[in-house]
Amino acid sequence: MKMQDSTNSVTATDWLDTIRWNDDGLVPAIAQDADTGDILMMAWMNRESLELTAREQQAIYWSRSRGKLWRKGESSGHEQRVREIRLDCDEDVILLKVEQRGGIACHTGRRSCFYRVLEDGQWVATDPVLKDPDSIYGTGGHSHE
Amino acid sequence: MKMQDSTNSVTATDWLDTIRWNDDGLVPAIAQDADTGDILMMAWMNRESLELTAREQQAIYWSRSRGKLWRKGESSGHEQRVREIRLDCDEDVILLKVEQRGGIACHTGRRSCFYRVLEDGQWVATDPVLKDPDSIYGTGGHSHE
Repeated sequence: MKMQDSTNSVTATDWLDTIRWNDDGLVPAIAQDADTGDILMMAWMNRESLELTAREQQAIYWSRSRGKLWRKGESSGHEQRVREIRLDCDEDVILLKVEQRGGIACHTGRRSCFYRVLEDGQWVATDPVLKDPDSIYGTGGHSHE
Repeated sequence: MKMQDSTNSVTATDWLDTIRWNDDGLVPAIAQDADTGDILMMAWMNRESLELTAREQQAIYWSRSRGKLWRKGESSGHEQRVREIRLDCDEDVILLKVEQRGGIACHTGRRSCFYRVLEDGQWVATDPVLKDPDSIYGTGGHSHE
């Protein structure tokens, strides 16, 4: 494809049309620590949240439970600065490589949301709580941002 | 909880009841290279496929397009030996730490399915094809296992 000299023939949001959104208009987004490779969490994005994520280079998800944009870290301070956005071969999963502020992604105060391991037919919590959730969110009973 | 001497008071599949399956009875499963930390792919599992995965220690997904169990590697030989199974805080995403046979997870012949990076508003394929898909699947037109 030949490009114009001074204008870009690809409009700014063509890349969003590539994505195969599900029936709810969402796509799963995996957040991976850009330095350590640890998988921090998986959440969902709609078109607006992914566009904002790319523009601001901060992870902004779609909260299915609250039905609104969820700026990761908005109440916890545990923002995710986005270094890279990747797409899979089926065009229906997003991978974010992020810098995790505070080193904590999970609302339980752990580094990663994947802190339970299957051992002998039981889920065992193996990863330590780094910070008391009450001190992250206050005592208002937040279980999630 | 007190355990019986010779019998296990937890039935073998209690751990499957913990999982919050979606309306289709599925849960997303992320496959991560156990050694390098690379994220290889994300696919879906139903109850049966996850139970088999744990029992056989081989990744067995549910193919949504074909509506049947998908033993990863059944036609490509690129099996995934499972070292660890993890669950996230919301109990609705599975993480598999795997050994990727052949070093190739993607049906395009690449190591990972996440081979496209967003650069200047376009998806750019950055990771190399390690093996011609035709030599993996034959020339029958397979795009996926």
